Amino acid sequence: MDLGPNALLIGQAGSRFRLDTPALLIDRDALERNIAAMAAHARGLGIALRPHAKTHKSLAVAKRQVEAGALGICCATLGEAEVMVRGGVPGIHITSPQVTEAKIARLMALNAAPHLGLSVVVDHPANLAALDRAAMAAGKALDVLVDCEAGLGRTGVASEDALGSLARAALAAEGLALRGIQSYSGNLQHIPVRAERRARARQQVERLGASLGRLRAAGIAVPIVTGGGTGTFDLDPEGRVFTELQVGSYVFMDVQYRQALADGRNAPPFETALFVSTAVVSVNAAGYVTTDAGLKCFATDGPAPEPSAGAPAGSRYEFFGDEHGRLVLPAGADKPPLGARIECVTPHCDPTVNLHDVYHVVAGDTLVEIWPVDARGKR
Amino acid sequence: MDLGPNALLIGQAGSRFRLDTPALLIDRDALERNIAAMAAHARGLGIALRPHAKTHKSLAVAKRQVEAGALGICCATLGEAEVMVRGGVPGIHITSPQVTEAKIARLMALNAAPHLGLSVVVDHPANLAALDRAAMAAGKALDVLVDCEAGLGRTGVASEDALGSLARAALAAEGLALRGIQSYSGNLQHIPVRAERRARARQQVERLGASLGRLRAAGIAVPIVTGGGTGTFDLDPEGRVFTELQVGSYVFMDVQYRQALADGRNAPPFETALFVSTAVVSVNAAGYVTTDAGLKCFATDGPAPEPSAGAPAGSRYEFFGDEHGRLVLPAGADKPPLGARIECVTPHCDPTVNLHDVYHVVAGDTLVEIWPVDARGKR
Repeated sequence: MDLGPNALLIGQAGSRFRLDTPALLIDRDALERNIAAMAAHARGLGIALRPHAKTHKSLAVAKRQVEAGALGICCATLGEAEVMVRGGVPGIHITSPQVTEAKIARLMALNAAPHLGLSVVVDHPANLAALDRAAMAAGKALDVLVDCEAGLGRTGVASEDALGSLARAALAAEGLALRGIQSYSGNLQHIPVRAERRARARQQVERLGASLGRLRAAGIAVPIVTGGGTGTFDLDPEGRVFTELQVGSYVFMDVQYRQALADGRNAPPFETALFVSTAVVSVNAAGYVTTDAGLKCFATDGPAPEPSAGAPAGSRYEFFGDEHGRLVLPAGADKPPLGARIECVTPHCDPTVNLHDVYHVVAGDTLVEIWPVDARGKR
Repeated sequence: MDLGPNALLIGQAGSRFRLDTPALLIDRDALERNIAAMAAHARGLGIALRPHAKTHKSLAVAKRQVEAGALGICCATLGEAEVMVRGGVPGIHITSPQVTEAKIARLMALNAAPHLGLSVVVDHPANLAALDRAAMAAGKALDVLVDCEAGLGRTGVASEDALGSLARAALAAEGLALRGIQSYSGNLQHIPVRAERRARARQQVERLGASLGRLRAAGIAVPIVTGGGTGTFDLDPEGRVFTELQVGSYVFMDVQYRQALADGRNAPPFETALFVSTAVVSVNAAGYVTTDAGLKCFATDGPAPEPSAGAPAGSRYEFFGDEHGRLVLPAGADKPPLGARIECVTPHCDPTVNLHDVYHVVAGDTLVEIWPVDARGKR
């Protein structure tokens, strides 16, 4: 693939600050420390990791997570799973129901191809029956996990009865192999006060543990219990119910998670590893300069990007249309000149990454590699 | 390029409602009526059109606009301009300053290649001098327009003095050819009350006309005066100051422009031609269903998407994470079943388009073509 005009700068000292902008940056060393820290955390607790690729959509990052010990990778979309499977990544689990005829046909094609583990959630008997028919027709069993609603209300069975009856239906389906259950509490991840996050995560895990106990008492084997996120990475394992964690954002961190995870600690347990480098393109106004990264470059569903390297202390970023940002300067600050590079911490990392074709991997002030965002836009 | 799994459905009756989702849709007939209506409007007033490609990023749409009489196409980024020039589209004008060394090198390469017209704005003497030096070194003059701040404060010279001195500098620069000025009042486009929009557009055009008069009285030729947007498409021409309009969103319309342009009229003058088709993927909750299009599929900087075809009357869409939406149903409405297609009017069309690789062009209930979003993500 075309790595863009910055490919010529790889290896040059100071290239980080001469990149064609806007450019998505990974701080390589911070990324590697984050991957190692989460791997050590999980190893220490004896829990497995299946990190979520919806954050990074990158084979290079997924492979580093697997090399550090992850048993597989989660995907939010079938398109992400296609990229990961074809890239040779093992243990792919699709965390959203695949329901339409078009998606089921693609899923069967992916399952028929050589892979190192592929599973999908199911939350409805009609979808389970459709997957069963398709897998029977394809002549290869499909691994499924029952998705349990866990506070977010987005997908998942809504009651313990529904869980039991769907699990029994999966066991009875000749085309399907029941591998376990999924329980993702997306509503807890960004609760800013750690004590509240902990109390609610504990409640949720206790409920889940009770349901699981009854399922197992009824003779249903549940080898995999998958869920959790970066906001509860150290809270979800406490109940000893989950067998694996689906953490995603820890690899990069962002403005939201930095704030949430700092509460109750001296510092967040993971470093910021993702930035957007932007250039000053207009300096005619008093009190601010205009940069070349706007709402086609940063996610707009969360807080604003946070200026970091290159920005005068105390400056802040505001959106200024599709292709521009406004760097508002504190009183008395010198205006950065035309062309100056301003880096920003990304507001919500997952949808920000999805706006970029490539990662510019930097070590110190040097561009060292360019990685494609392999699954960008893949549904 | 890979047109995706839906390419096999082209030409099949009913294919619109069997698309692999989420899928960005263009209603072909509505698009063509919008292009024809704006062309007729401009012809009637004797004003030229240089529609903005930042909305559609598509060679197919740009070529239809040019075939209908547009003298060229505007681009917000150099990357968009590269796509348009290489696609053979004439009269490309870049509406944002190109400032960094990296961008100036790419701009010179584009200007050196065969093209049918290429210009760029400039709003600062240092940028003008850098462009002049680069064009002299490249041995081919570069067409420039002076960008005038017009209420938004994003780019542009901030005073009439600065306009005059930058125009004189451009005239004196051997590497540059001064082609005119740009004045874009982005702050007026979405004012919801037409009377207020009209009053403020008139003020702005009068100020611009006065500045232009003094520039011309000083012997500076200004053949091109470019600006305007969809929100003021019929207001900007009133002062007879603009020679051309940079309208963009009229080709597709969106929730924002539909509301703004309906004020003071029986109906908006342009039709909604852009939708996202999404499928119901979970139905276990009371009062709503979950769809497969979330904040990686719709722009989140404006209002919510508006449910249209397939949605029960009175339902509304809410964001529900990266890959999901919540279709909230009115009391008593039947739940759409798993797999049902729900189309949504896009909230803010430009950044929504930028999230998709292809347009699915439909005529009635049939998918008739798939067009790439050629300049998606191009900076």
